[in-house]
Amino acid sequence: MERTAHADRFAEMIGAANVLTSPDDQAPYLTEWRDLYQGVTPMVLRPGSTEEVSAVMTYAYQNDLKVVPQGGNTGLVGGQIPQETGDEIVLSLSRLNKVRAVDPAGFTITAEAGVVLETLQNEAENVDRLFPLALGAQGSCQIGGNISTNAGGTAVLAYGNTRDLVLGLEVVLPTGEIWNGLRALRKDNTGYELKQLFIGGEGTLGIITAAALKLFPRPKKLEAAFVGLPDPHAALKLFTLAKAQAGPVLTGFEIMPRVGVEFCLRHLEGARDPLEGEHAWYVLMELSSGSEAFPVRDLMESILGEAFEEGLVEDAAFAQNLTQVQDFWHVRHGMSEVQKPEGGSIKHDVSVPVASIPDFLDKAMAAVEDFVPGCRPVPFGHIGDGNIHFNVSQPVDADKEDYLAKWDEMNTIVHGIVGEFGGSISAEHGIGRLKRDLLKDVKQGIELDLMKRIKDAFDPKGLLNPGRVL
Amino acid sequence: MERTAHADRFAEMIGAANVLTSPDDQAPYLTEWRDLYQGVTPMVLRPGSTEEVSAVMTYAYQNDLKVVPQGGNTGLVGGQIPQETGDEIVLSLSRLNKVRAVDPAGFTITAEAGVVLETLQNEAENVDRLFPLALGAQGSCQIGGNISTNAGGTAVLAYGNTRDLVLGLEVVLPTGEIWNGLRALRKDNTGYELKQLFIGGEGTLGIITAAALKLFPRPKKLEAAFVGLPDPHAALKLFTLAKAQAGPVLTGFEIMPRVGVEFCLRHLEGARDPLEGEHAWYVLMELSSGSEAFPVRDLMESILGEAFEEGLVEDAAFAQNLTQVQDFWHVRHGMSEVQKPEGGSIKHDVSVPVASIPDFLDKAMAAVEDFVPGCRPVPFGHIGDGNIHFNVSQPVDADKEDYLAKWDEMNTIVHGIVGEFGGSISAEHGIGRLKRDLLKDVKQGIELDLMKRIKDAFDPKGLLNPGRVL
Repeated sequence: MERTAHADRFAEMIGAANVLTSPDDQAPYLTEWRDLYQGVTPMVLRPGSTEEVSAVMTYAYQNDLKVVPQGGNTGLVGGQIPQETGDEIVLSLSRLNKVRAVDPAGFTITAEAGVVLETLQNEAENVDRLFPLALGAQGSCQIGGNISTNAGGTAVLAYGNTRDLVLGLEVVLPTGEIWNGLRALRKDNTGYELKQLFIGGEGTLGIITAAALKLFPRPKKLEAAFVGLPDPHAALKLFTLAKAQAGPVLTGFEIMPRVGVEFCLRHLEGARDPLEGEHAWYVLMELSSGSEAFPVRDLMESILGEAFEEGLVEDAAFAQNLTQVQDFWHVRHGMSEVQKPEGGSIKHDVSVPVASIPDFLDKAMAAVEDFVPGCRPVPFGHIGDGNIHFNVSQPVDADKEDYLAKWDEMNTIVHGIVGEFGGSISAEHGIGRLKRDLLKDVKQGIELDLMKRIKDAFDPKGLLNPGRVL
Repeated sequence: MERTAHADRFAEMIGAANVLTSPDDQAPYLTEWRDLYQGVTPMVLRPGSTEEVSAVMTYAYQNDLKVVPQGGNTGLVGGQIPQETGDEIVLSLSRLNKVRAVDPAGFTITAEAGVVLETLQNEAENVDRLFPLALGAQGSCQIGGNISTNAGGTAVLAYGNTRDLVLGLEVVLPTGEIWNGLRALRKDNTGYELKQLFIGGEGTLGIITAAALKLFPRPKKLEAAFVGLPDPHAALKLFTLAKAQAGPVLTGFEIMPRVGVEFCLRHLEGARDPLEGEHAWYVLMELSSGSEAFPVRDLMESILGEAFEEGLVEDAAFAQNLTQVQDFWHVRHGMSEVQKPEGGSIKHDVSVPVASIPDFLDKAMAAVEDFVPGCRPVPFGHIGDGNIHFNVSQPVDADKEDYLAKWDEMNTIVHGIVGEFGGSISAEHGIGRLKRDLLKDVKQGIELDLMKRIKDAFDPKGLLNPGRVL
């Protein structure tokens, strides 16, 4: 049976308007937003319900057709883009965009895979609740993709990764069968936790069509401080002190070096030097509480007062209002884009145990400076999660192409050090196609083997999102 | 090869003193603490290290020997007791009892499977940290068993189930291979989350030998109140109000009916009626914070003040000191044992979505009272987790044996209603042998099928903890 015959059959299932075969219609689904991947596909399918996803997958499985599920197409490792071979059908979840239930009393929300993250945040806010997942792409990424990649973001410190926010899932399996695991239960010990395989499974084991998710009280009070410190060792001590005193009220703890702040001053509109003097390192610390009764400002002052006494902190500025809070975060959020005008940047999305962050930074920074004298490391990120975006800008006046040619070699050096600390080479972004070949270097043979056995058990024909992860 | 030959080989691997073949030596490993199961085994093996566990399992796999892993032998569903067939070797993890690392700065602890839960709590407290898992058996249960059964307990509301406390695992697979997944990372998106299969896997997929676990700030301030209410609908509204205002500071929210309090007054030493008048239902509410700065008492007063104004609460008593806090919990913790002197009690460990608790209780209580006129439902438990211990005492003066003969029939009625609310028939205790036959009634065929495929993929010979769960 040839391509058009398949398209006709799919058109019967989901409507001809939802089978996209022309290049213009397909374009938005085939381009990766950083232009790292350009896909080719026989057709993009846009089913409108779980049953239609099931019908599509049943037919695809029977006819040995490869399928790539796609959410908001904001992934960072190429998982959602069909391969250049042109034999992978794109299955878009965008039309499954209903919020099925909001339960403020039980602190849950149930939504379909194609609901945009920002929509979900707003639905929660409408009933005075918080859905805490927050990340740069929230205006276009979809909750199904967030769950499939176990997205991280800026609220992990207090609320956990996406995995920690999921109560139940509805999934269409590679064979087309529907698994209804959409239980909104806080406790359920009846057999293996299947949902955990689909969370972070990057769409290789099944297609998430809906999820029951946790909600939280909406923060009512918020304080932020920008802190200057001598080094990451002091930053870790400040983190430990703050966490011990504030517990779940510590909702942000981000580290960045002076060079990153300088990049912002040069290239980021509206950025101001947050402190009067210069400091080798900075921490942006945020406390927030869903309780009006919590004296968040007093606690911030008490933590920083103790930190001053212990000599950890050189200077600190408190945000006096919400605009200043936003100014502080503006610098932190600008940290990635301001690296671009400084030339080539070699990037790593790594994690190590929280307490190893200072030693990791010492060692990794020395190693890359040794490898490329004059290079400018700009490591920044979520110290409280042990997650550092270890980006390294080229030396001033170096040739950009020459520098970027060292990407793989520098990755090898940095990932080697990550390994020494028992860390991860993909803390947030997943494996997809980009890091697939690295996996064999960082995983034990038995671990890869168990992963393959699971893949075979769920998708014996290997038709769903092939060539991703494994 | 016969039994003694195997025992000789095991003795070479782990020492003859750790191969128990005499009835006296074996006795503590074969008796279930409620006398529901009495096991028979050719030998109890007590390896002293992960490598010894691996050697034992490698040999067992090669020789088609069945193995039952056992921790503190406190399980409630018979999973840890060898079957009466007498062909299952018991593998005790008790000698793997080292705390390998404590990291107060990074808020983690790494311990071997045989470490007793109370020991782990104390190790955390020694460095001013909290390991929050807490349950009745904590003086003898072991962390490996807690993880294998995804234990619940009294701290789930604020800290989650055991699953939520695990960062990484070391596991010996059915084949004897060691998987070192002992990463103390807060973020790691490199492939399928294998550890989640072993957590709550009840020892059927592998033997957990060590775990990296989360620690939290130790609570510094604590308040408790005993509250009288008209019905569970009011209790749910109070929960929602308290959770919205207190967020993670709400660390306990337990419901119990008047009849349960009366049982305590009759049979529990030191129990006093917590409020002056009688109320149809009671809630024990606890707030605690790791932050000295948190005005916990003010918040408690504010929540209950609002609840009074809304007419949810009839009366409330505040604990004035730690002794009174303990008095309150004494009544709650006594709720199970005081049912015994009242005759037969038919028990259910169920959960439903939190917001469905009142409707579930209305319906289930009416159904059992209809089924056995005069019976006395004593539903109590963790309303904030949606988890109710739905226990039903016999009618006064009824025949105990006659009443208990209705166990399965009543289970069917209650579990049917649980199903209508999308609930779980085993919220905390697992499946083991006790609920294995019920699983096919409550799980979708495809879900059971996926579980079986996973079991086959990990344990193709079906030798590890056979007949449990699946």
